[in-house]
Amino acid sequence: MARIAYKEKVLSKNDELAAEVRKRLASRGVFALNLISGPGAGKTSLVERTAAWAKGRVRAAALSGDQATENDAERIRSAGIPALQITTGSECHLNAGRVLDLLDCPELSGIRLLLIENVGNLICPAAYDLGEAAKVAVLSVAEGDDKPLKYPALFQRAELLVINKVDLLDFTDFRLERVITNAKHVAPHLGVMTLSCRTGEGLEDWYQWIDERLRQT
Amino acid sequence: MARIAYKEKVLSKNDELAAEVRKRLASRGVFALNLISGPGAGKTSLVERTAAWAKGRVRAAALSGDQATENDAERIRSAGIPALQITTGSECHLNAGRVLDLLDCPELSGIRLLLIENVGNLICPAAYDLGEAAKVAVLSVAEGDDKPLKYPALFQRAELLVINKVDLLDFTDFRLERVITNAKHVAPHLGVMTLSCRTGEGLEDWYQWIDERLRQT
Repeated sequence: MARIAYKEKVLSKNDELAAEVRKRLASRGVFALNLISGPGAGKTSLVERTAAWAKGRVRAAALSGDQATENDAERIRSAGIPALQITTGSECHLNAGRVLDLLDCPELSGIRLLLIENVGNLICPAAYDLGEAAKVAVLSVAEGDDKPLKYPALFQRAELLVINKVDLLDFTDFRLERVITNAKHVAPHLGVMTLSCRTGEGLEDWYQWIDERLRQT
Repeated sequence: MARIAYKEKVLSKNDELAAEVRKRLASRGVFALNLISGPGAGKTSLVERTAAWAKGRVRAAALSGDQATENDAERIRSAGIPALQITTGSECHLNAGRVLDLLDCPELSGIRLLLIENVGNLICPAAYDLGEAAKVAVLSVAEGDDKPLKYPALFQRAELLVINKVDLLDFTDFRLERVITNAKHVAPHLGVMTLSCRTGEGLEDWYQWIDERLRQT
């Protein structure tokens, strides 16, 4: 019971900080996405593609969470937008305090779009509000179509499910209709988009979705 | 700092319970593996394959951890060995207490091999000793060859790295030599095995490894 009480205290403190992040982002007109997936589903690739699209269109930046290394932020910078790495050490998720600490960094000055790439983990990142406008769940075709049933919390809290690596559909037992049925079973509200960051298939829908949300921000 | 102190207390309590699990397993001559991977790397498929191999050879059982559903345990039972599901709710890892609670269940009576399938997560499961003889890290070709650098703790604590889904090698940018270099960089001691639970390629090495370890137990 002590454990549950402690976790509730941590989450309630996080919610306070997330509200502060949300307030500041709103005052600056920033649309922020919190991208959550298991390791290797393609969050960094999606941010790289989005960075290349944003260049010349909209000022954007990224925050990238990992247990170790600066590698992801470097990949994103090479794709054309400023990126800050958050290394979490033994923590398996980002929290709002880490985001709040970085909001006044020069890399984030004047931006309209903030892409937050969470630590690769389907569980705890779903519980920590970062002050984002929307959570996006990313699932790779190679991970299996049963994941929404086994990790329901993320799908329930996300606004959009991006199914990545559709170029692998022919080489796996993953069935699109099955994953969508499973996702809608735990989260009837969830929007679903299918794409491949490797081939570029389906990315236009993603850019259009961001574009529409930017116009509303 | 309160957070770090709290986590240390939880881990130290877990270590005590893990020592008790280890003692009991040793007294019963049970060889226990703790399989850890991100979601969808193929732990359940590996346990299913191992269950089919064990049938008629060695008495085996499985414990399967997930945030929700009984699905994995059902898959493993269909493959021919008793399996108990541990649903963890908001927890992103198994702990030794959950394993200790199940050790006297009839499903585990008289077994020589215990396969513990952890919750799909590359981070926290690495920190919680379950009383196993060895941790096995499972990584899928579809996840990317950079994972050992980004999630070093698991690879440092595992005895063996199983690279699954080698049937997808031709359809991804994953390079075997690169993942092995990265894994050895963070964990020079690590054994590496490549296989595909889908096609069966490489599984003989895995069965042989278990067989040898069983003979030493």
